[in-house]
Amino acid sequence: MSKSNQYGLILAGGRGTRFWPRSRRARAKQVLSFFGERSLIQQTVYRLSPVIPPERQWILTSAALVDVIRKQLPEIPKRQILAEPAQRNTAPAIGLAAHILHSLDPDAVFGVFPADHLIAKEAAYRKLVRAAFREAEQGRIVVLGVQPKWPETGYGYVEFPRESQPGIASPVKSFREKPDLATARKFLAAKRFYWNAGMFFWRADTVLNALREHLPKTATLLAGLPGAGSRAFPSRLKSVFPHCENISIDYAVMEKAKNVAGISTGDIGWNDVGSWHAVYELARRDADGNAVRGDALVTESSGNYVDAEGKLVALLGVRDLVVVDTPDALLIADRSRSQQVGDLVKLLEKQKRDHLL
Amino acid sequence: MSKSNQYGLILAGGRGTRFWPRSRRARAKQVLSFFGERSLIQQTVYRLSPVIPPERQWILTSAALVDVIRKQLPEIPKRQILAEPAQRNTAPAIGLAAHILHSLDPDAVFGVFPADHLIAKEAAYRKLVRAAFREAEQGRIVVLGVQPKWPETGYGYVEFPRESQPGIASPVKSFREKPDLATARKFLAAKRFYWNAGMFFWRADTVLNALREHLPKTATLLAGLPGAGSRAFPSRLKSVFPHCENISIDYAVMEKAKNVAGISTGDIGWNDVGSWHAVYELARRDADGNAVRGDALVTESSGNYVDAEGKLVALLGVRDLVVVDTPDALLIADRSRSQQVGDLVKLLEKQKRDHLL
Repeated sequence: MSKSNQYGLILAGGRGTRFWPRSRRARAKQVLSFFGERSLIQQTVYRLSPVIPPERQWILTSAALVDVIRKQLPEIPKRQILAEPAQRNTAPAIGLAAHILHSLDPDAVFGVFPADHLIAKEAAYRKLVRAAFREAEQGRIVVLGVQPKWPETGYGYVEFPRESQPGIASPVKSFREKPDLATARKFLAAKRFYWNAGMFFWRADTVLNALREHLPKTATLLAGLPGAGSRAFPSRLKSVFPHCENISIDYAVMEKAKNVAGISTGDIGWNDVGSWHAVYELARRDADGNAVRGDALVTESSGNYVDAEGKLVALLGVRDLVVVDTPDALLIADRSRSQQVGDLVKLLEKQKRDHLL
Repeated sequence: MSKSNQYGLILAGGRGTRFWPRSRRARAKQVLSFFGERSLIQQTVYRLSPVIPPERQWILTSAALVDVIRKQLPEIPKRQILAEPAQRNTAPAIGLAAHILHSLDPDAVFGVFPADHLIAKEAAYRKLVRAAFREAEQGRIVVLGVQPKWPETGYGYVEFPRESQPGIASPVKSFREKPDLATARKFLAAKRFYWNAGMFFWRADTVLNALREHLPKTATLLAGLPGAGSRAFPSRLKSVFPHCENISIDYAVMEKAKNVAGISTGDIGWNDVGSWHAVYELARRDADGNAVRGDALVTESSGNYVDAEGKLVALLGVRDLVVVDTPDALLIADRSRSQQVGDLVKLLEKQKRDHLL
């Protein structure tokens, strides 16, 4: 079923500070398991496995996360789980992957997948991934456009032609940055604007060509690297990568490239699990709307999310809270403030409380 | 200043379940320090020390608490910190103390003091204690009546004669059980009903006589005990005490005795610290009304009480909560529900979660 020149690149460099205090530098969102046993990155890898076997999946992450990811994913060869020497957004990361894959397999075509999203309808999703690979093989840059469910202002959008159909590639008309609410509402009503979920497909040489054209400095730096298997590679990467431009692939390439095709999805149950509130919404809840991970004694309380390790949590007369307990930090937030949790982490950074980050 | 026949009996047998999860069987309310460094029982002992030196203070408590109390109060001779063989309310406890003190000092006069109350105005309070001892020396039963501050329905009341004055003994007209709110309001308005705070003063022989008259079975059982210093005492106490009647001194004696004198207080800053809400009210608070014991990061939150050991607690957009964190249990309650915390403990007992009690 899968073609041997098809690869996966899972981008797992994020910190996920909105999931503090459960998320830490060395235990970021993508390696946490909010639902069931598997972490988000494990779910991402296993979801793709029928299309891209683990032996052809590559993961780019931060130095702090390499060890835990290697442990969680023994199916993926260790050398394919790489730490970026510095955090440099998606363009250099994807460029680096293209360089490596092209040096190993000049015919390589690969998909880019965020490590920390949820997709409920896996079979439908894999069908789209296969279609995207077919387009990419032909030298196109392919983006998946996720069917929007509400007028979200936190995502970028992909504009499709009026006549486009789900699952079938069409030329992308434009990329739109995060809109204001009025624009987002118009997008939703127009039914041809889709969420840009950061899933792209292309040949490795297509990426390298696009970078040469649109991001020449980074392209040159990466082109100077030796082959990925060579002895000099790690140290050269360490000295070169920090000089790459800190820019997203969206700004650097997608918005400028001419040959971009889009494949829009139907409802694939996509969720970027952006906050504790999102986790609450996705979790199993009791009749009073409480979602509990761990052991809780709940009295006259409703709408709460509780995540505690090895301890009893007693709730008495409280509503709509997020309670996350860890050995050294406890968060108690109004659920509607979930987006602000990342600000707490910034505050802790300012206060130099490194042991809590 | 103090007379050598004056003794203190501190009753420290309670469990204080409303302070779960901080309070446990072996760490009950009286041995916890909610304010500053000292526990409530330490504060009680040191508050009385200028009138009754520690060498003449006795403590009755439960087997689970003897060790921690002995540790907290090295000033009190170990043999004067006794475990009741069974929990039998105040009448048998006071009777036992009277028996012991009378066997050691036939002239003994003693005051009874709950271990877990707060009294802010200590000098004024000690003046009242001294006055109470003087009355008790003369063979009277003396009760302290605490000036009420609100129409409390959770306490019993002592009725004083219209012409009575604070600090001066008068014959008590009646004891009233916990009133309903309408009655409590009338009591407050009448200005001659005082809170019964469980502080009594009497000669040991007065107590023994009163028990013989009003609680003959218990009186006989206690009279059969050998002297407190004797070798047979502990085992005999163990077999006899559980047969004593399970009744409070209020019901057993105070409400029936004829020779009861009352001394009413002015404002002595008395507080029975009955719940987390009471602790919150007594604690130091920031401008937003948050009281924190431990380390907290408070954002857009107000009116919260936080008590956590060795961990950062981050509050985000929450109001009027009680948060008490311990290594194996975490309580998050609406502050107005503080009275219900004891019910959680009953629930845990039903569920036989003994390790959490």
